[in-house]
Amino acid sequence: MQLNLQKNVGLAQKQATAPSPAFNVRGNAMRSKLPVQVASKAASAKKAPIARAVAEAEDKASKQFGVFRLSYDVNNEDKEMMKNWKKTINVAVTGASGTIANHLLFMLASGEVYGKDQPIALQLLGSERSYEALEGVAMELEDSLYPLLREVSIGIDPYEIFAGADWALMVGAQPRGPGMERSDLIQKNGQIFQVQGRALNEVADRNCKVIVVGNPCCTNALIAMENAPNLPRKNFHALTRLDENRAKSQLALKAGKFYTSVSRVAVWGNHSTTQVPDFLNAKIGGLPAMNVIRDNQWFKEHFTPKVAMRGGALIKKWGRSSAASTAVSVADSIRSLITPTPPGDCFSSGVISDGNLYGIQEGLNFSFPCRSKGDGDYEICNDFIIDDWLRMKIKAAEDELIQERDCVSHLIGREGGACAIGPNTPDTSVPGEN
Amino acid sequence: MQLNLQKNVGLAQKQATAPSPAFNVRGNAMRSKLPVQVASKAASAKKAPIARAVAEAEDKASKQFGVFRLSYDVNNEDKEMMKNWKKTINVAVTGASGTIANHLLFMLASGEVYGKDQPIALQLLGSERSYEALEGVAMELEDSLYPLLREVSIGIDPYEIFAGADWALMVGAQPRGPGMERSDLIQKNGQIFQVQGRALNEVADRNCKVIVVGNPCCTNALIAMENAPNLPRKNFHALTRLDENRAKSQLALKAGKFYTSVSRVAVWGNHSTTQVPDFLNAKIGGLPAMNVIRDNQWFKEHFTPKVAMRGGALIKKWGRSSAASTAVSVADSIRSLITPTPPGDCFSSGVISDGNLYGIQEGLNFSFPCRSKGDGDYEICNDFIIDDWLRMKIKAAEDELIQERDCVSHLIGREGGACAIGPNTPDTSVPGEN
Repeated sequence: MQLNLQKNVGLAQKQATAPSPAFNVRGNAMRSKLPVQVASKAASAKKAPIARAVAEAEDKASKQFGVFRLSYDVNNEDKEMMKNWKKTINVAVTGASGTIANHLLFMLASGEVYGKDQPIALQLLGSERSYEALEGVAMELEDSLYPLLREVSIGIDPYEIFAGADWALMVGAQPRGPGMERSDLIQKNGQIFQVQGRALNEVADRNCKVIVVGNPCCTNALIAMENAPNLPRKNFHALTRLDENRAKSQLALKAGKFYTSVSRVAVWGNHSTTQVPDFLNAKIGGLPAMNVIRDNQWFKEHFTPKVAMRGGALIKKWGRSSAASTAVSVADSIRSLITPTPPGDCFSSGVISDGNLYGIQEGLNFSFPCRSKGDGDYEICNDFIIDDWLRMKIKAAEDELIQERDCVSHLIGREGGACAIGPNTPDTSVPGEN
Repeated sequence: MQLNLQKNVGLAQKQATAPSPAFNVRGNAMRSKLPVQVASKAASAKKAPIARAVAEAEDKASKQFGVFRLSYDVNNEDKEMMKNWKKTINVAVTGASGTIANHLLFMLASGEVYGKDQPIALQLLGSERSYEALEGVAMELEDSLYPLLREVSIGIDPYEIFAGADWALMVGAQPRGPGMERSDLIQKNGQIFQVQGRALNEVADRNCKVIVVGNPCCTNALIAMENAPNLPRKNFHALTRLDENRAKSQLALKAGKFYTSVSRVAVWGNHSTTQVPDFLNAKIGGLPAMNVIRDNQWFKEHFTPKVAMRGGALIKKWGRSSAASTAVSVADSIRSLITPTPPGDCFSSGVISDGNLYGIQEGLNFSFPCRSKGDGDYEICNDFIIDDWLRMKIKAAEDELIQERDCVSHLIGREGGACAIGPNTPDTSVPGEN
């Protein structure tokens, strides 16, 4: 590995100069981590020879956009501003020229997600078709002068864009075209997430946290995870936080309380209309939600569909899907992993069901109530009460996720049943997101 | 005034209950200010009888959207979270269903603009055509669960939406239709800003800060100001901060430094292609920019048009105009007024030229370098060096703004020259923003 690095003048120079604070580096002087890490990662990755990772790290540098492409002298910058900064983290975002990302990227760059002491490098994945739009996004990021945004690179190759990623926010997915069957959509997206999972496996940080937004997000997250055996299985999340947030706002509305008083709202299962926003364990003002609202019929017949159909209601009003609030929920998901969960509270995330105590089949990406110490890791909450009604709803979600998994067996190297999703299978896509 | 308030049961009740922390109020318990202030404002406003302002305050409450419409019990909320909060401020935003506002509103609601101790009430102005979209925006704000966002009201009547506004962010403007002459555009928008200025004059907070984004923003700000004689003239700003931010990123790019090292960049004059981004006074890493870049030809021939044409370049890439970075620059403008300007630095804003020491004709909205103590007020910097070249460029901008003003004389109650902008007048609209 030494040999490889020494062959590479650019990288060797970065390494040699990294400890000193007063010279030109690409990025900032506090950031000596990427090339070394990529190389060591590559050594542990099965399919990536060191040379490739090194070449990619070099290549990555050449794809830095605009003002971020420059070597710059940190001596020119305000040392007071930077002295308590952490090391720069690499955040890869797919679907980076889309509307959800357009909100998310500016939230990330502003420091309101990872914190005001956390410089970040954005690595943006687009498609050939969207490459120019991606340049436009990078130009707007340049013009926003965010101090914490230290690097922006753009590209269309996941092996390049995921290199050294500490976080991969997988927003991009194939949208459902006119007349496209749901099974076709699962297949199409499955192939994308297989490729992207393999890329993560080869080049991402060995503890990369992955949040899948593109739908069907639970099954897409499962596919990415199964194709990235060198990353911890529990690092793969599917976004069900938007459902949680919507459930909280509906509970508040019904209770006549402000939404900040609502806590401990789990969303179980799939991000689809079979989703199970949990009112049994939810609290409002510290009391059980069911003691505050006292209307079982509303909970069972109105609350759940209202949350599931929220995206559709919004599209009817707004004429387009809910990009901003989706981005907010991604930001919330990240913050939930890097800040301690308040006692008694939880956050919802689609995670691997391995070892869960609720009897959900293992090997599924399933949304559970989770807790975190704020270290990027989490555990599934084990103290949620499940009554018969909740068990029945959760079982339906489990069945659906098993069915989705069966349709992508070939993409996850699994002996599975045949795909049973056909033209007559009820469409459980969340309206406005299919 | 007492009589009027006592007649009004809703308001009287709010007032009576306001000092106690443990009851239901519309909004939050810390906020007893609106009804009282509106009433006292109305008393000082020439055209607004108290009854009207009171009715409006009541009416406003009834327009609160969704979860924000509720009375809620602050006892249910985390007192620790709220104990150091300031009083809620009212922020009115026009063009609220548009793409710039769609970024801006979430930035405002997140607390990253006004601060994490500043609860806000958003008052969103749309049009009849966009009313449903406005509901969609409010729904997304509900689902984002921002703790600091205490109220959201939506409407299409500026007299309702500007009621009690501490800030008015005037993003909306008539876009230029196909074949529309620039003089027509100025007229059309002039009428909008005349109406909105009058509404501000009647119902906004007497120290309301106004930032005009809709183009032609300087002349629109002038019209609003002249129609709001009860508000301080210096409270009216036109957005030239996006130009400043773009200028900084271009200086950084040329100098090979990171943008955080660039300071003291003034934009003089109009937000149009006659804009004058000032490289003479600009600094890079604390040194004069001209000593760092040492390429006068680049400054004079490339830098200025590059900044002015940035919006057009972005549209070519991105296929739509720069909504996110515009919203960022509005947020920057607000922050510049509520945080002290660092010593030796400045921020650019289109402000009333009354009493300026640079010889610019009075009674124009003209972009100057400004400084603030962080109290919402500002002064024009008086220590900027003007050389012959800069003077010539500034003069051209001044001539243009006089010409624009002459075209709207009838809207600002002024004896002025005839409108000299015709089909043969060069079009100086910033590309992508006309």
